Amino acid sequence: MGLDDAILIRTSNTLKYEDNRVLMLDRRQFPEREVWQRYSTYEEVASAIEDMVIQGAGSVAFAACFGLALAAHCYSSLDEAEFEKNLVKAAGRLKATRPTSEYMIPLVDKMFQVAVEAHAKGPDPAEAVVRKTEQLMDDDDQLTLKCGLHASHLIDDGDGILTHCYPGGALLYMLDYARQQGKQVRVYCSETRPYLQGARLTAASVHKLGIPATIVTDNMGAFLMAQGKIQKFITACDRITMDGHIANKVGTYQYAICANYHRVPFIVLGYDGPQTNTLSAGDVEIEERNPEEVLYCRGVRTGAPGVEGYYPAFDITPPTLIGAIVTDRGVFSPLEIGRAYKHRFSR
Amino acid sequence: MGLDDAILIRTSNTLKYEDNRVLMLDRRQFPEREVWQRYSTYEEVASAIEDMVIQGAGSVAFAACFGLALAAHCYSSLDEAEFEKNLVKAAGRLKATRPTSEYMIPLVDKMFQVAVEAHAKGPDPAEAVVRKTEQLMDDDDQLTLKCGLHASHLIDDGDGILTHCYPGGALLYMLDYARQQGKQVRVYCSETRPYLQGARLTAASVHKLGIPATIVTDNMGAFLMAQGKIQKFITACDRITMDGHIANKVGTYQYAICANYHRVPFIVLGYDGPQTNTLSAGDVEIEERNPEEVLYCRGVRTGAPGVEGYYPAFDITPPTLIGAIVTDRGVFSPLEIGRAYKHRFSR
Repeated sequence: MGLDDAILIRTSNTLKYEDNRVLMLDRRQFPEREVWQRYSTYEEVASAIEDMVIQGAGSVAFAACFGLALAAHCYSSLDEAEFEKNLVKAAGRLKATRPTSEYMIPLVDKMFQVAVEAHAKGPDPAEAVVRKTEQLMDDDDQLTLKCGLHASHLIDDGDGILTHCYPGGALLYMLDYARQQGKQVRVYCSETRPYLQGARLTAASVHKLGIPATIVTDNMGAFLMAQGKIQKFITACDRITMDGHIANKVGTYQYAICANYHRVPFIVLGYDGPQTNTLSAGDVEIEERNPEEVLYCRGVRTGAPGVEGYYPAFDITPPTLIGAIVTDRGVFSPLEIGRAYKHRFSR
Repeated sequence: MGLDDAILIRTSNTLKYEDNRVLMLDRRQFPEREVWQRYSTYEEVASAIEDMVIQGAGSVAFAACFGLALAAHCYSSLDEAEFEKNLVKAAGRLKATRPTSEYMIPLVDKMFQVAVEAHAKGPDPAEAVVRKTEQLMDDDDQLTLKCGLHASHLIDDGDGILTHCYPGGALLYMLDYARQQGKQVRVYCSETRPYLQGARLTAASVHKLGIPATIVTDNMGAFLMAQGKIQKFITACDRITMDGHIANKVGTYQYAICANYHRVPFIVLGYDGPQTNTLSAGDVEIEERNPEEVLYCRGVRTGAPGVEGYYPAFDITPPTLIGAIVTDRGVFSPLEIGRAYKHRFSR
């Protein structure tokens, strides 16, 4: 058991572009089954992203880029104007799949430019998009590792760590580095209804690392804190605003309030930091998914017949509830993150 | 749609003693199916209580009393000493089923006395236990109604009400009285993993009353408050301590912290008030159920293979997070509840 067994740690382990097909490890069936889905059109990729075959801000952004590559391949024989017209439509469709994760939008826009330039030069613009996306996935793994390394220094020996949803590879690198530093921890994985990313993706990955993991339901975090079992609350985020808010899987805010009440620090794994055009919480669109999704659990009906559901997929946590935002550049107070990233180049 | 359609409102609608059988409406299958389970031994009744066929502090207490009646019937031909010896064992088994709900303990002890006295006098001591239990169930319905009436005066027109687990008949009476007072409300039912009492029992009952209900998962309450959708947080409780703590379904504490953070009052439906021998939180035993139960949802596996679960079934909320405890006697501050009930007679 170790890093290589936790295959979700790198997006490239679960998302590939081969022979003009996009291959995705189906996270809805993981970890019980390692089923690969294959898609040959951007529309299929967009639907797969919406249907939660893949999840996580970085992974869905790269999946959308591969979806754009499929579109570029499909339209490669068209003239410049027609190629661009069709590609604009494909990019729009892909960017609309998960509106809260803004990381996807500049990335798909960048790949659109890559495709248009490649189309002017050679036979298959898809190849340039795929090559560039794969390079960015490698870069992303490197920054994920650095984010995990910086975060590991905030962990103390004996910590109980509460997580929510699947915080991505940075959590796993962090845990592995903390272990190398001689720190023993236990991870409590909040199950994360309705899709159970915590009970499945996070719990399986932490367990594969050989680090003790315990699954709890989404209503237990505060009581674990009251019992003294939790010393850190750690999640990733889908969006960081320049004034230090974060948007993440719904439930993060609830735990952040409870962590603050119990004087448990909330550490955000912030990966590559904020997008400079997201100034504050008002600039974040909260994705409301199909309300029916909260009435089922793994295909089995959970809700009473005739009663409606409500499903905001993300929530927003203010900087006053956040102890630190950790990126590949280091550890930041939420109050300084905007200043630190003011002059960043857009990716 | 109305009070008579919400059959969970009265325990007597879902729990009966007939021909030396205990009949229970199976709440695990409700509301989709109205399946009645039949039990002919106290051991079967004890197992049914443990297996969540019936739930709620009052209902499980009455079910345990009917279980004791089965034992009294079974042992009725024994001499006094043997009868008592066997009945002590049955009472002990029944009282151990759900340790957090102390209401059950004095009630079963009382029925033990009823059985012993009846055994000395006549042929079937079970009849006396059943008659007394049925009378207490009627009394309980009356006090439930009064509790609901008092609570209804705390509701404002337009309120969004967040609930957790199934707060019992007092919630339904409260909603019906509030409607009679011309107040329109919407109830958000927190699904309450792992057994989904909120998504199923509460949502179905509120819907049957003809009052708008919305199901949310256990991680959404704080975000609903941030969105301004929630004006009251209301639950029942399994235990009230003399110094104003309450024990209730795990998750109550988490919402109470979030309600306090958002200045949303937490109203506890306290039914008949505290037991005078439960002085503070340290006197409440928190039931830890089988950890496997958090790894499943309606029989379907939710947890990653090989990872353990943890399942404290209740949590404790301190008086500083409680706005009011409402009983059949009226509305009390958690700071005065102990003084108000200091001289109560034990039931």
